[in-house]
Amino acid sequence: MTPIANDTLLRALLREPTDYTPLWLMRQAGRYLPEYNATRARAGSFLGLAQNPDYATEVTLQPLDRYALDAAILFSDILTVPDAMGLGLSFAAGEGPRFARPLRTEADVAALRAPDLDRLRYVFDAVAQIRRALVRDGSQRVPLIGFSGSPWTLACYMIEGSGSDDWRQAKTMMYARPDLMHRVLEINAQAVAAYLNAQVAAGAQAVMLFDSWGGALADGAFQTFSLAYSRRVIEQLVREHEGRRVPVILFTKGGGPWLDAMADSGADALGVDWTVNLGAARARVGDRVALQGNLDPSVLFAPPERIAEQARSVLDSFGPIAPGQAAGHVFNLGHGISQFTPPEHVDALVEAVHAHSRTLRR
Amino acid sequence: MTPIANDTLLRALLREPTDYTPLWLMRQAGRYLPEYNATRARAGSFLGLAQNPDYATEVTLQPLDRYALDAAILFSDILTVPDAMGLGLSFAAGEGPRFARPLRTEADVAALRAPDLDRLRYVFDAVAQIRRALVRDGSQRVPLIGFSGSPWTLACYMIEGSGSDDWRQAKTMMYARPDLMHRVLEINAQAVAAYLNAQVAAGAQAVMLFDSWGGALADGAFQTFSLAYSRRVIEQLVREHEGRRVPVILFTKGGGPWLDAMADSGADALGVDWTVNLGAARARVGDRVALQGNLDPSVLFAPPERIAEQARSVLDSFGPIAPGQAAGHVFNLGHGISQFTPPEHVDALVEAVHAHSRTLRR
Repeated sequence: MTPIANDTLLRALLREPTDYTPLWLMRQAGRYLPEYNATRARAGSFLGLAQNPDYATEVTLQPLDRYALDAAILFSDILTVPDAMGLGLSFAAGEGPRFARPLRTEADVAALRAPDLDRLRYVFDAVAQIRRALVRDGSQRVPLIGFSGSPWTLACYMIEGSGSDDWRQAKTMMYARPDLMHRVLEINAQAVAAYLNAQVAAGAQAVMLFDSWGGALADGAFQTFSLAYSRRVIEQLVREHEGRRVPVILFTKGGGPWLDAMADSGADALGVDWTVNLGAARARVGDRVALQGNLDPSVLFAPPERIAEQARSVLDSFGPIAPGQAAGHVFNLGHGISQFTPPEHVDALVEAVHAHSRTLRR
Repeated sequence: MTPIANDTLLRALLREPTDYTPLWLMRQAGRYLPEYNATRARAGSFLGLAQNPDYATEVTLQPLDRYALDAAILFSDILTVPDAMGLGLSFAAGEGPRFARPLRTEADVAALRAPDLDRLRYVFDAVAQIRRALVRDGSQRVPLIGFSGSPWTLACYMIEGSGSDDWRQAKTMMYARPDLMHRVLEINAQAVAAYLNAQVAAGAQAVMLFDSWGGALADGAFQTFSLAYSRRVIEQLVREHEGRRVPVILFTKGGGPWLDAMADSGADALGVDWTVNLGAARARVGDRVALQGNLDPSVLFAPPERIAEQARSVLDSFGPIAPGQAAGHVFNLGHGISQFTPPEHVDALVEAVHAHSRTLRR
């Protein structure tokens, strides 16, 4: 088995001691990088990029060549699973995702099936290829994270047919026909678990559930329609592979109100957005889970010295870490990096996080 | 002085005992009502409607004629103040607000001044006219709520120049040039306080600060850039008029994480969105403030029996209320009512809230 040169991320996710706070950035392979835009232009489209393992491998590695990041994350889209279910995913230029065949009727829901994983082969091929590409001088540079949308977040798009600021169709089904919504979520949970397990089998060394729209739910509805199904996914996941524990990260954007319940989901780590005070969150979750987050991506629009100041402030808010003690913090943004981020600003962030977090452990 | 026939709202906001839980709906005079759309068509445009006291009075009263609501709220827009500052507000068809002259440079900020209140005369005229129109058989049917955008929320639009899903320009100024942002917020706080006091002088019997975008801020930034300036507004407000206390409601959409600090803002009541558990919020704020909220507006897309069920569930989540004891709950949605709401569904909501909340007090 190829050793991992820098496994700080995996140790932090499992609440083992680390010399510094590891960091990676949601959407780190993305439009703010000129080299990403060049590859995307060659691929012709976003889906052409995401569905081709060569291109996906190329863009996954781009941010690692530029910055001292502590993880690679599979380049893909959260909507691969419903696309493989036959809903017909497309991305119109300048717009978000669209499904040609959204779920609107009882018959649509009755016809829904978990996808044949063969239709997602391109994802598992990308995972395997990225793992190989991460090897340099006989060791793997950093771990590879796989991911999926959560059952609820997939359901939002599957029912709405596109992004939304109120998820009117999805919530109408939820409130008017909860039986139909539960059926969609059960199928999604089964599909997502199988999808993530296949990513792990192909080489993903940690997996993350993106519950991007759990925060749109009311208290009560969140627990019933989002968290319960994320938990069901997590229960079905293979937790050990290649002799290592495979950490699971659950991230609900806007999930701050429910961190306590999320800490009992079975996840090893919880992603948190910037509305959360990390120190208060740490006190709430105790030693149950690690935390991942939570800089506002907009900080990266400010000059480098301000970025460093805000990054230090996030690290400080997590609170003291005794040397050799478990910390359980992975630095990240509270949401994906903006396409308008000046790439050189990310250098200031990476340097500040690595330097200041070493200081905190002295 | 004309007595108020139904002052349940004012008593609930001040945490005095009430026989039932009063309710009103954010954006209750709006596009889901055919009579509103008819008036708007006659007015020619949204601004034509909002800036004409006759039309504003007409639409403010429309929902009261249809439903047994416990309050009227001035029909206006949150961006009247920056418009009066000379930023040039317009609404393109099918789009949100736009400012012709957003604040982008140090010179723009240096030139900013609190507006001459004469430019907002149409708002105060509307308040006075609505008060007169609310009188029936010698008494005022229900109290009239006035409102303003919060200093931070106004700054978001003033700097961005329009709505946004990331407030990139506003946050860039905040992180890169906090001195400029503080200057904008100071002027806004001064302007908003004067604006609300003039509404009270004209007849508003409670006032609400809409901090629609406070929830976009990071922990720390919220306290510094939103809450501190809402507090500054509240400190300057006239709290007694016509021999009655004038309650102040502070509503930060997404403000759940900060309810404890908000309870010390000087407000009498806090608006909360549907991500908040009312019982837990009540325990956190204690007897410092009343709470207003928090049904997900999407519930109103479901059939009437489901609406009643969800409304009862919100009332139950607030917890028990001993007869004759202060409750401090005003029922509302957690955000404005959707334009796609079937008007007859609101009947089911109003009836369920009034009936069930009486039961809870027995």
